[in-house]
Amino acid sequence: MLARSQVHNFAAGPSPLPASVLEEAAAGLVNYNGTGMGVCELSHRGKEFKGIIEGAEADIRQLLNLPDTHAVLFMQGGGTTQFASVVLNVLAARRLAHASTPTEQYEPPVLDYVLSGSWSSKAYAEAQRLALNGEDKPFFVARVAGTSKDVKYTALPSTYDFTPGAALAFYCENETINGDEFAPTAGAEASFPFDKVPEGTVLVADYSSSFLSRPIPNIGAHGIIYAGAQKNLGPSGVTVVIVRKDLLVDTTAAMKLGGVPSVPIQSEYRTLADNGSLYNTPPVFPIYVSALVLRHLVKLGGLDAVAKTNKAKADALYASLDNAEAKGAVTCVVRQKTARSWMNVPFNINNGREAEFLQGAEERGFRQLKGHRSVGGIRASIYNAVTLESVQALCAYIDEFAAA
Amino acid sequence: MLARSQVHNFAAGPSPLPASVLEEAAAGLVNYNGTGMGVCELSHRGKEFKGIIEGAEADIRQLLNLPDTHAVLFMQGGGTTQFASVVLNVLAARRLAHASTPTEQYEPPVLDYVLSGSWSSKAYAEAQRLALNGEDKPFFVARVAGTSKDVKYTALPSTYDFTPGAALAFYCENETINGDEFAPTAGAEASFPFDKVPEGTVLVADYSSSFLSRPIPNIGAHGIIYAGAQKNLGPSGVTVVIVRKDLLVDTTAAMKLGGVPSVPIQSEYRTLADNGSLYNTPPVFPIYVSALVLRHLVKLGGLDAVAKTNKAKADALYASLDNAEAKGAVTCVVRQKTARSWMNVPFNINNGREAEFLQGAEERGFRQLKGHRSVGGIRASIYNAVTLESVQALCAYIDEFAAA
Repeated sequence: MLARSQVHNFAAGPSPLPASVLEEAAAGLVNYNGTGMGVCELSHRGKEFKGIIEGAEADIRQLLNLPDTHAVLFMQGGGTTQFASVVLNVLAARRLAHASTPTEQYEPPVLDYVLSGSWSSKAYAEAQRLALNGEDKPFFVARVAGTSKDVKYTALPSTYDFTPGAALAFYCENETINGDEFAPTAGAEASFPFDKVPEGTVLVADYSSSFLSRPIPNIGAHGIIYAGAQKNLGPSGVTVVIVRKDLLVDTTAAMKLGGVPSVPIQSEYRTLADNGSLYNTPPVFPIYVSALVLRHLVKLGGLDAVAKTNKAKADALYASLDNAEAKGAVTCVVRQKTARSWMNVPFNINNGREAEFLQGAEERGFRQLKGHRSVGGIRASIYNAVTLESVQALCAYIDEFAAA
Repeated sequence: MLARSQVHNFAAGPSPLPASVLEEAAAGLVNYNGTGMGVCELSHRGKEFKGIIEGAEADIRQLLNLPDTHAVLFMQGGGTTQFASVVLNVLAARRLAHASTPTEQYEPPVLDYVLSGSWSSKAYAEAQRLALNGEDKPFFVARVAGTSKDVKYTALPSTYDFTPGAALAFYCENETINGDEFAPTAGAEASFPFDKVPEGTVLVADYSSSFLSRPIPNIGAHGIIYAGAQKNLGPSGVTVVIVRKDLLVDTTAAMKLGGVPSVPIQSEYRTLADNGSLYNTPPVFPIYVSALVLRHLVKLGGLDAVAKTNKAKADALYASLDNAEAKGAVTCVVRQKTARSWMNVPFNINNGREAEFLQGAEERGFRQLKGHRSVGGIRASIYNAVTLESVQALCAYIDEFAAA
């Protein structure tokens, strides 16, 4: 029977939440604000939940300095569901912009994908599926506009080749499994080549594992940004989708025109926006806890303050790892130093000592350090709720391990 | 500041949960089973969550006496998302069964809908949307195989007209808004005309608001049964989908053949089944609380015991309402007595006394009694977690109100 204070949780997601938030949520689960009812037992259309979800949206807008040009949606299904939703809504918007073109003359648009790791590759695979349209011409052409697959995603792509007139350009800001990120650890500007994305192309970013870890560079340049909650925001079960309002389109009208994949109504961003994310019953508890986390981040001083702490954590951990690597004890997975993630730090233990490393980690209260099942090794995820003290404890252990 | 004991919660969903379950969940939220980590902070692929989700499936199987012919899935998006998922998977299965037929010769299948209220009508509307395929022939034909719209859904359909060879026949077992249900209050056999559904047609039932309130009549005859959690099962954010295994098909292969609507990968039942509902991060907390509720139901003695209590609650409430109606004080919405829901009891207050009724209810600690915004009036939902004592307190108030 361990207390929370005896454990350092480095889970990649679902990941740790602030202890104060969990205590408040536990109380609200049983009796919300003295109503005599728990938060999960209240109508999602009542004034209590309305206050929660509207507060969450306001805090996201404030924390990210989000312009009014964009809507904030709370959706279900995780980032994986957004792989499809992004495509479906962007294609519907494109088709409606060419409403007078008969379907047989409508040219399948191009969708550009930047592949920097496992998640962007999954998004690309889903696009390829959704392009399928029997033996007729495909609904669209999904292509690669930059990849670092040749170096097994241990760096970001070194060149880009976007398609003029492409409907969409997709990237994953932080690759949770591979540990590379477009915002470099060094704290310089984001290294995503915003200036290379063609005018008129909808820029889409998967921000699942770096959302709220620091301000979003060039946020206004994005058409769609989405993030599953279960990293820095809240419990799994809700996904935040930020959508430029011109992409809130009538997908039914596009389906009537033809030449686009079918869009389930729950995937239509417009429907969610028109209903304040309450088209049907939302995931009340994940949204409630997310709202508490957002309040917590505002009180901490916003994302500049959060980023400062996250940078200190990442700098400390990479310093220890670089030192251990110099001693031959470990190998960092990401070889391009300016592409190292602030959030997910994968490394391998050399000389057959992985089991020894994990056992010592377990004894010291370090939890969930095993790498993703697809790549193995070690991964320390250091999301917002992981304290600098936890990271320093891990650093001390790595130093000790490398010296042994 | 009210205690839970001072309140009787008659919410239509999200609805009350057993107090003991909420207390246990509140503890698990902060520290699950002495791990030093909360349940939302654990990997969904770790042994703790594996135990939770596998236990939940086993309890559903036991409670419903579900045959091995069917898979149990935990999905996101609510019942509204299933309106589409049901259609997409059934159509893919049908297309694959005619894989050698070229798309241009493939006849659009017929989908039959039984309309008994607001939710079945919404499901039908979504099917009509998904049939859209530009100016070419529609993907399928959605039609009405029985409706009680002519009596504003105050009864079940009186006649049925299913299509021989239809791909799907859909009904909503309990209409949460309208208050009519196929399983009659009287406790007789279900009144859905199972014998009229053609051989080979996939029978689909929306069980959202009556799932786990009693055994499911003729469960094995169904191809798909789904239920959003937030009535009798758990917090909103998870949907249980029971699927006959021959409907776990490769939708990508169907999309390659053409002639079917596109299927986002997260809507493919096969993908969820192949991954034990963990294709991507599931809604951990809603599944956890649902698992606790399922254990609670097993300990209560299973669904026969639950049904006995629910029948006593419904009988008591309808007796009070019939008495109040005889005195002219109220009018029950559902006019066909054998179609009255066990779970959702809508009624109207006569003589302009609705505000008086609601104020008296509020003073006595009765909460969330207002009818759905689309129909107004009063609705008392008496799901599993509403105690017989709460119902008796409401009955006493109705008796008193009718006598005044």
